[in-house]
Amino acid sequence: MCEMKIIKASIIGFGTVGQGIAKVLMDKSDYLKNIGLEIKVIAIADSKGSEVNLEGINLVDAIKRKKESGTVALESLSGIEIIENIEHELVIETTPTNAETGGIGLLNMLKAFECGRDVVTSNKGPLTIKYNELINASKKSNSAFKFEATVGGAMPTINLIKDVLIGNDIRSIQGILNGTCNYILTRMEEEQASYEQILAESIELGIAETDPSYDVEGYDTAYKLVILAQDIFKMDVGFKDVEITGITQITKESLNMAKSQGYSIKLIGEIEKDLIRVAPRLVPQNHPLSVKGTMNVAYIQTDLSGPITITGMGAGSIETASAILSDIISIYK
Amino acid sequence: MCEMKIIKASIIGFGTVGQGIAKVLMDKSDYLKNIGLEIKVIAIADSKGSEVNLEGINLVDAIKRKKESGTVALESLSGIEIIENIEHELVIETTPTNAETGGIGLLNMLKAFECGRDVVTSNKGPLTIKYNELINASKKSNSAFKFEATVGGAMPTINLIKDVLIGNDIRSIQGILNGTCNYILTRMEEEQASYEQILAESIELGIAETDPSYDVEGYDTAYKLVILAQDIFKMDVGFKDVEITGITQITKESLNMAKSQGYSIKLIGEIEKDLIRVAPRLVPQNHPLSVKGTMNVAYIQTDLSGPITITGMGAGSIETASAILSDIISIYK
Repeated sequence: MCEMKIIKASIIGFGTVGQGIAKVLMDKSDYLKNIGLEIKVIAIADSKGSEVNLEGINLVDAIKRKKESGTVALESLSGIEIIENIEHELVIETTPTNAETGGIGLLNMLKAFECGRDVVTSNKGPLTIKYNELINASKKSNSAFKFEATVGGAMPTINLIKDVLIGNDIRSIQGILNGTCNYILTRMEEEQASYEQILAESIELGIAETDPSYDVEGYDTAYKLVILAQDIFKMDVGFKDVEITGITQITKESLNMAKSQGYSIKLIGEIEKDLIRVAPRLVPQNHPLSVKGTMNVAYIQTDLSGPITITGMGAGSIETASAILSDIISIYK
Repeated sequence: MCEMKIIKASIIGFGTVGQGIAKVLMDKSDYLKNIGLEIKVIAIADSKGSEVNLEGINLVDAIKRKKESGTVALESLSGIEIIENIEHELVIETTPTNAETGGIGLLNMLKAFECGRDVVTSNKGPLTIKYNELINASKKSNSAFKFEATVGGAMPTINLIKDVLIGNDIRSIQGILNGTCNYILTRMEEEQASYEQILAESIELGIAETDPSYDVEGYDTAYKLVILAQDIFKMDVGFKDVEITGITQITKESLNMAKSQGYSIKLIGEIEKDLIRVAPRLVPQNHPLSVKGTMNVAYIQTDLSGPITITGMGAGSIETASAILSDIISIYK
């Protein structure tokens, strides 16, 4: 058969998504070998330290240790020290998003490119605030840089547009890019319940964060729009350029009134020429954008193909990891 | 900038789709040059003959001549003679589908591979009946072979699954893959009208063929399923293995009854392990499969990403040409 390509990888950040990609790499190791690829994880870092094993880390043990003791750390080497000092091809960057400064994720990615390593990430923050700098750094070092998982989790948006719809001019994108907001609005509509009640239950279920403002104020959607605007539309925009209205003022009365006329209220992010906006919008209940629960959707207007709609799970450990896996395969296959 | 890659191409078959791709190649020539690609059409053939110009055909004139005189022919050279005797890289095969024998399309594609040429096609017939033979011939000659446009027109299904969802195990596909049937069922439901009445109007509008059996008996959907089953699921199946029921027995009464319970009736093609079937099915009106009019949709169950739904225009000259263009770019970029 074909020759095996062995890719040495680090996982920097070992929360939900980092553990998800570790699981997926185990589950898919036979599949990957069949297509001539072995992804050997030689280092995992979290905020407390790391494990390094140049022969390949035992991922079952690493996940178990993280669950039991709260950290994967066996030594004090940090993520960025691993990126700088240990020879490997691929950095899987899954540290938490910091969209104010880009946080440690930004430093990790820039260091990775400086060292000539490829980067696949689910971390929105760095791309939101330093898109151009990151793209230029990756080009300068001739490194691959893929970030499908930053927008829409398992719902493929960036690769769909850039690879599959290639040749099309993208006129506009409208989408539901935050599963938490969609879940809250869907339940408010279906149960005729108040925002406060459903929010409280969503927090209990772990669907909303204890401090839900990042989602419900529309910021998360805005960060994703900024990535799409820069990457797909080549717009030179930042978070400050997005008009943002969240869902905190939506009442059950307004949802009822909309429903009686055949509409739902959805938190829609949209981009078109000179417009980048997040706001609650009336959506006809039979419109492709009218998806329910935690589902995400993107409605993409193209010049040749007409409207294309894609829906999928916007979050989840394995679902987000699936986008990372696809990015990894597309680089090395 | 980057060096220009000049690809000499023939368009074999110059009906709706062939003319569509000629238009799209003109419209997108600047875009293509920007990404370092010039697609130079050096021959166009239809059933009556051909035009050949090694310097590049004037596509405006060719379309005009076809419209005015019913043929593009300036000389008697046939499509297959062009494929065999004129040096070029890419055969764009858009002859009409013959799903009984594969027709001239099958011979054209095999000849193209024999001569080491790449093939991009919208022609279902050959792939339905001789998938393995075609794939093997393309591999043997190291030729590219892409056929996104055979399934779902502008709705990207094959490339979405094989490129963007790579790494996922595809559990099942359910889809509306025939726009004519969906248009008829949608109008019957919305207007509470009979099958016969809407069919007659659809024929008048050019949405259904004068002999509509290919669409309304479910055959077109079945051919598309056979391509997906072989290409995505690696099932060794043919047209005879598909359980097929069309829409000709659907009454307005059954649509009304379904509607009153929150369902639509849709002609659904589905594939999963050991199952390949076309039949009218009850679909909840808020289900992702419930799209209207001539829209196509595919609901794809994956192991990692969960359910992914894609919708788009299932037919149309430019829309189908857009899938051909994306395939062409993906080969040469």
